[in-house]
This record gives sequence, structure tokens and C-alpha cells, in this order.
Amino acid sequence: MKATLMYGAGDVRVVEVPDPTLQEPTDAIIRVVRGCICGSDLHPYHSAPAGNGIPMGHEAIGIVEDAGSEVSLLSKGDFVIVPFATHDNTCVFCQEGVHTSCVKGGWLTGGQGEALRLSQADGTAVKVPGVGEDTDEALLASLLTLSDVYLTGWHAAFMGRVEPGKTVTVIGDGAVGLSAVLSAKQMGAERIILMGRHQSRTDLGIEFGATDVVAERGAEGVRKVMDLTNGEGSHVVLEAVGHMPAYEQAFGIVRPGGVISRVGVPQYEEAPVGFGSLFGKNATLTGGPAPVRAYLEAAIPEVLEGRINPGKVFDRVVALDDVPVGYAAMDARESLKVMVNPSL
Amino acid sequence: MKATLMYGAGDVRVVEVPDPTLQEPTDAIIRVVRGCICGSDLHPYHSAPAGNGIPMGHEAIGIVEDAGSEVSLLSKGDFVIVPFATHDNTCVFCQEGVHTSCVKGGWLTGGQGEALRLSQADGTAVKVPGVGEDTDEALLASLLTLSDVYLTGWHAAFMGRVEPGKTVTVIGDGAVGLSAVLSAKQMGAERIILMGRHQSRTDLGIEFGATDVVAERGAEGVRKVMDLTNGEGSHVVLEAVGHMPAYEQAFGIVRPGGVISRVGVPQYEEAPVGFGSLFGKNATLTGGPAPVRAYLEAAIPEVLEGRINPGKVFDRVVALDDVPVGYAAMDARESLKVMVNPSL
Repeated sequence: MKATLMYGAGDVRVVEVPDPTLQEPTDAIIRVVRGCICGSDLHPYHSAPAGNGIPMGHEAIGIVEDAGSEVSLLSKGDFVIVPFATHDNTCVFCQEGVHTSCVKGGWLTGGQGEALRLSQADGTAVKVPGVGEDTDEALLASLLTLSDVYLTGWHAAFMGRVEPGKTVTVIGDGAVGLSAVLSAKQMGAERIILMGRHQSRTDLGIEFGATDVVAERGAEGVRKVMDLTNGEGSHVVLEAVGHMPAYEQAFGIVRPGGVISRVGVPQYEEAPVGFGSLFGKNATLTGGPAPVRAYLEAAIPEVLEGRINPGKVFDRVVALDDVPVGYAAMDARESLKVMVNPSL
Repeated sequence: MKATLMYGAGDVRVVEVPDPTLQEPTDAIIRVVRGCICGSDLHPYHSAPAGNGIPMGHEAIGIVEDAGSEVSLLSKGDFVIVPFATHDNTCVFCQEGVHTSCVKGGWLTGGQGEALRLSQADGTAVKVPGVGEDTDEALLASLLTLSDVYLTGWHAAFMGRVEPGKTVTVIGDGAVGLSAVLSAKQMGAERIILMGRHQSRTDLGIEFGATDVVAERGAEGVRKVMDLTNGEGSHVVLEAVGHMPAYEQAFGIVRPGGVISRVGVPQYEEAPVGFGSLFGKNATLTGGPAPVRAYLEAAIPEVLEGRINPGKVFDRVVALDDVPVGYAAMDARESLKVMVNPSL
């Protein structure tokens, strides 16, 4: 079958690989109906060392093709959403809602291919009855966002304790940032300031619920948000980028007693957290890899019943062979988020 | 009158200064009944540059001697608790419970003297009817802790969202750490692990509610706490030291999805917050200077009715002239916390 492998920085290829097989009794084989490229895939696309090829793709919806002997919740033919992290959904951390720290956990790979081997299938995948390959394309797109991007935005807002009356600033107009805008809107935020410079993206942000757009960055961006908030700052800052300037932006605009919630994977280890950044104003820093499984079952009816359309973040669909084109388009910011349809 | 001034590292003196006078209509003059030395006073005691003398002491209980024309809630003769931060108690941040970020705020000074000028008197000081200079010494001691140390420990636990069933680890067996133990106990923590090496202090920690004591530090201390928590880590870590090794300890033992709440003033600005420390396990970092005013009115009856005795952290009382002896004793860890009685 075909799969996408990263051979080094800028060297992503679609190649023939052996079909995946069951290796553990808790595994399932999922035929990928739709996959996609994540903003975080651009990190290895920029910096992966040359090597033998790393399987890419951690977001997928698909059909169960086979299941191991210990898989009891899934059967051949089930349509499932596959979160980007695998987990047993029973360990102490899963019970506490931190599925990304599951004691049997791992990270999904192979989503940018024809099929994938899913570990901990029972605890990871969630069935969506009544949906199949022939379901409306927009609905499939929105269901696909529940494997990562929308629920990563939701996680940001959830950890940031967004609630009615709060002013929320979202840093980053990528697909996660826009998902964070939509999530903050769902949670009742009074005001949602979106920091981003790409008008087609910020326009979607406005459609998702942003009340203000700030295109400026750095000190000028901080000043603009402070002006918009009467000099007080933002109750909640959702940081959906992962680079240090975004973090600096975040602690510059967070209000005393406010929360910075990060879901952009930090491309730094050390950062300011002392009296002059977080401590002095009692700012809270939170966030991490989203335990999408914790939010997935509640989100599915929101999508199926049309109350949210997070799939609008996809602005391009490619066949498997064109996945490298998709990477290049996202890297050049010509595409916001690229969906992969292996049946094309 | 006599007051304590810091002239440089290790050079703290009690000297004659002019009596404080009203300078703003919102000021009050407070005669100090009891003051004390804070662990954070040891930072300038170690590192203050040589200079003209900085007034010391930010914790006090006392009697209102005079009040400005715009002070309406306090009258001459009132017995008051004076928080370490001054604030109007009306601004947007005070209303949100972050009094330490009050737009008219400042920091109390002069508590280690015979009297002090209190800014924003109405919004800062809280009257305690029925209490005076002749009140029982243990009760005065506990009321004095409400100006900073006990409610700083409370703030740590509050920001850490301690609640029944949670495992809490307190790093630091100083007066703030022990106050954090007592606060965690009040909030119903199931298990309270106290990390500290001074048995007289950890014994008081056990009296305050600690269920386990870990004397080890560094990697060994982390291992010990992980062993005690079934390898899972602590839901809440209350960091009451402020030095980098304590922070490293904190992210080493915090559980996935857990909270590190800092109230030890950080003696660093940058610290690890990336995937390997906080982000990867969805750990939250919170805390800051305690808005004790937000908690003060609820704490007073707890003290007056004898449900808590946070004043036990004081293990020495000195006259004003002996304040330098008190600093030396705390610095040498011969004393846990030193009370100052200007009437001696």
C-alpha cells in the first residue's frame, strides 16, 4: 500500500510499504477514509535529520478492517474517528482525563497512508454510527477535525477555563488557533481577539466567532491588545503557535490573575516564568498535548447536528500521491490545512 | 521612633527615624503591635547593595493611630491586620481577587518598626473587633500570620485547586511551606507530603496535617515522592521556596494533568516549561504574590474560633532592638520565624 514517509527536512515522499498487520491483540487495522497534514508536521518537515523514513500522519477517520482478539468495542466495518494519541482509556491518567499521558499510550502514525495499525484500539478509536465513506464531504471534514485540530483548540480553551464574560485572545491564525476561536465561542467567551496576519484565515476566525483581529506582532501586537482591553489585558490567552515570540506575546497580554493556555508544541524548553513575566501578576501557564479522547464523545453530536463546522479549516484536498504538494502548500502558507483523500 | 532599615547585605539595623505622617488622604498611621521577619526578607539580607537604608517589614497587626480625610472604614483605636500588599479593594483587579495587582497598589514597608504609614488604608487593612494589645499571645500570633505567611500558604493551595481526594506535595519546610500544609489540610487534601529536612519544622508540618515527610532533595527526593505516589506523582505541588532546585523538584513530581503552585518568590526568571517539563504532561504552573486581602475576612473567624493555629510558625519573639538578631537566627535556620514585639 501507499504511505507517507519523512526522509529528512523537506524530503517527504509517498512510497509503497507493506500493508499493516495486527501485532498485538489490542490492535486494529484502520483503512483511512480521510487523513490530513498537521501544522506540527511542518516541524520535522523543517528539521528532521536524514534517515530511513518516518511514517507520517496522526489524524484520521476510517473504517475498521480487522481487529485483534482483545478488541471488543470495534468490529470490521465500523466507521471511526482516530485520535492522534493512543491510549487504553482505563488507566488512572485516562480516568483523570489526561489520555495523552496514558501508561500504555503512544502516538498515532500512518494517517497519511491507505491504512494504519492502531494500538489500544478499544481505548482510542470512537465509532460514529450512521456515517460512512459516502457521507457528505463537509461532515467528513468536520469529523476528521475531531481526531486532533478542533479538539486541540477545545483543549486550549478548556484548560484556559474560558467562560461567559471572559476576554480571550488567540495567538495564531493556523487551524488550531481558529479551532480555539470556535471553541472559545462555544464556551461563551464575551470577546475573542484573534492575533493573525493572513486575512483569509482571520476571516474564517471572524466566522468562527472572533470579535477583533490584531495583525501586529511583538511589542506592537501587545500594545494593540492592551488598548483593546482597556489596558487590563486578556483573561485567557490561547497560544496556538509554539514559538518563543508567541509565548512572549502571551505573557505580555495576559491579565493579572489570567491564564495562558498553550497547545502549540513548544519549540523551546526554557522560557520566562519569573516575577517579570508570570509570577508577579499571578498568571497561570497551562496546556499540553490535547487528550482529545476526553472531549470526543461530546463533540460528535455537535458536528453531526450541525452546530459547529470545524471542518472549514480545510481549504484543500489532495490525493495520496500529492501529499508532498500539500506539505509544500502548507509550508508556504498557501494552504491553511490540507486534507488527504486516499480514494482519489 | 525606631524602625528597621537594611543598609546592605547582612547589614540590617534598628535606627531612629522620623515618625510616619499622613501623606495622602487615603493613608492611615498604624502603631505596630506585632511585626515579624519574613523568609523573603532574607533575600535582601543576602544580596542588597550597600545604600541609604531600606525600611523593612511587610507584615503587621496594629492599632490605627490616625487616618486621612478619605479613610472611612477605619478609626483611631481600631485593631487591624495589615496585608503585605496595599490596594484600594475596588479596582477591577481587586474585584477579580488579584489585589496584589491593584492599579493603586504597592507593598507595605515599616512593619519592623514602632509605627508605619499605610497607603490605601480602607482597602488594605481589615479590622478585628474584640481584639487588642492584651489579647492572648497565641491568638495575636495567629492573627499576625494573616498579614502574609498563612494566607500565602493558603494562596498556594487555592491556586493549586487542592480539594478532597488530592495528593499534595509541599516543597519547603519554612513558615510558608508549613502554612501551605495547614491550608491543604483545611481544603481536604487526602495526602500531604512535606519535603523538608529540619525535623522541628517537619514535626510542626505533621501537626498541621502532613501525612508523609521526605527529607531527600534532588533526584532522590523526586524518586521518593514518586515511590510514595505509586509512580504517578502528586496532583498538586506547592512550591514555597523560590529557588531553581525547588522548581525542578516540582516539575519532577507533578502528576500528568497536575498543578504546580508557586508562592516562593522566584529567584530566577527563566525556567524549563517545554515538552520535557510541563507541556508534555499537561502540567499547570500557577501562583504569585498572595492577594491575602481576598482571603482575609474568611480566615479571621477560623483563627478567632480556634479552628486553626497558624501562629505556631513563630518560634521566637524579639524586641525591636533585637531584630538584627532575629534576621541572623532565621538566616542560620535557628529560628523558623521571628516575631517582633515593639512593646518589649
